[in-house]
Amino acid sequence: MARLSSLVLHSNSESTLSRPILLCVQFDGTDFHGWQSQLNLRTVQDVLSDAVHAMVGTRTTLYASSRTDAGVHARALPVLFYSDKEIPLHGYKRGLNTLLPDDVSVLDAVEVSQDFNVRKSARGKTYQYTIWNHPSRAALYSRRAWNVPLPLDHSAMQTAADLLIGSFDFSSFRAADCQANSPQRSLTRVDINPSQTPLITIYVEGNAFLQHMVRIIAGTLVEVGKGRQPVAWVKKVLDARNRTEAGPTAPPHGLCLERVHYEPPPFDDLPFQR
Amino acid sequence: MARLSSLVLHSNSESTLSRPILLCVQFDGTDFHGWQSQLNLRTVQDVLSDAVHAMVGTRTTLYASSRTDAGVHARALPVLFYSDKEIPLHGYKRGLNTLLPDDVSVLDAVEVSQDFNVRKSARGKTYQYTIWNHPSRAALYSRRAWNVPLPLDHSAMQTAADLLIGSFDFSSFRAADCQANSPQRSLTRVDINPSQTPLITIYVEGNAFLQHMVRIIAGTLVEVGKGRQPVAWVKKVLDARNRTEAGPTAPPHGLCLERVHYEPPPFDDLPFQR
Repeated sequence: MARLSSLVLHSNSESTLSRPILLCVQFDGTDFHGWQSQLNLRTVQDVLSDAVHAMVGTRTTLYASSRTDAGVHARALPVLFYSDKEIPLHGYKRGLNTLLPDDVSVLDAVEVSQDFNVRKSARGKTYQYTIWNHPSRAALYSRRAWNVPLPLDHSAMQTAADLLIGSFDFSSFRAADCQANSPQRSLTRVDINPSQTPLITIYVEGNAFLQHMVRIIAGTLVEVGKGRQPVAWVKKVLDARNRTEAGPTAPPHGLCLERVHYEPPPFDDLPFQR
Repeated sequence: MARLSSLVLHSNSESTLSRPILLCVQFDGTDFHGWQSQLNLRTVQDVLSDAVHAMVGTRTTLYASSRTDAGVHARALPVLFYSDKEIPLHGYKRGLNTLLPDDVSVLDAVEVSQDFNVRKSARGKTYQYTIWNHPSRAALYSRRAWNVPLPLDHSAMQTAADLLIGSFDFSSFRAADCQANSPQRSLTRVDINPSQTPLITIYVEGNAFLQHMVRIIAGTLVEVGKGRQPVAWVKKVLDARNRTEAGPTAPPHGLCLERVHYEPPPFDDLPFQR
């Protein structure tokens, strides 16, 4: 209806078609029950939806490139919506940042083509998992990093991580209630970065991910890092195709969705490179 | 009384003297009304005091090397107290970290000499002020960095910062209600670090600081970074010895007390070097 009426009213202008607008959304997941709207719970989708509603005047469906679990963060989550409203793109950026609470922000807003599909057009994703590897808790990282008190052998972790590069059945690394049709996934990068110890970060890049996949990979690599399991165990876990063979699911607050990859990249000037 | 009775009971052991114990405390200041105890407000001193009380069984006075304003963070605040209790040092570390909330932690606990004075023994301090220099807010840094949307010329800021190195009357850089006897202070380092732009950090090191001194320095250097004032203006501000000549006081949440310097350093293995 909204689409039709705007066509009728402004039929001489192409820009009056319902425009697909892609937002680059950042949030600190600590005080959210994940992305997806839930009754009586604070979610990123609901908070962002209220802000978009306040700007465009109508309740508008938001499409995120992926859901995130409660407590998980996002540095750059692409979120799509359609708007008939003649608001310039920088107006969305500025307006939404004024309306949103401190723990959600919009880094960019771009117009994408009508055939852009925020999920299906994605070529891959990058996640970062952060560990505070020190015997004492660190209050300044408590929202963003998993505190592992025992010293981790990060070069053993990297050797184990290399075994996960490639296309595999990742059944051992998926949550029991994961609803994906196929457990086949391809990882192109699993990098352990110890350059800021005691902060250790694990970068994981792949075409798509199963539920809890990065958190189970992190929990499994930490078992190797602690010396509880040898490097080769990770290959056995992968071959077993059985969740119970892998390590524990690392807690959500260490996880951050870093980037969703599209070709060409929709945002031209994100304030971080990776 | 507590001291005397422990002396009487264990008079043959030197270790039963009331031991001066120095904690290295880290906190995220966002949800605190600063360090110092205040009626009906959540302060770091009260929260830490409750945890120490729970461990040693008596209400014990805590002496911090410095107060911090509401919203200011600390990576390593030295806090001294005296204890008669025979608890090993690692027991304090572990026990307090279990008792404390997520936004306060104890990185180390050491025993210091009886003549150690947490304020008077300090040789100097290092602060870090963090700026998120980007037109859009960043939710992941909202607790820790001041968002300055206009692009900053950080090399102009560094040239201006160099004018503050030395021993001066810093009256232009003190809060109106600062209660220090003398406005004379010595700065040994004012470094602008743009290596992680859009995050820009300002390190300030000196023998001691006036109230709001680092925040006024940050606010003043940002005026130069924006091009609103020339570099030489900072020298004029310093010479004026008048708070109204300087830039605005930068907000507290960008400020973090990094280190308090003693000779010799009391903590041997802090998980960061600076």
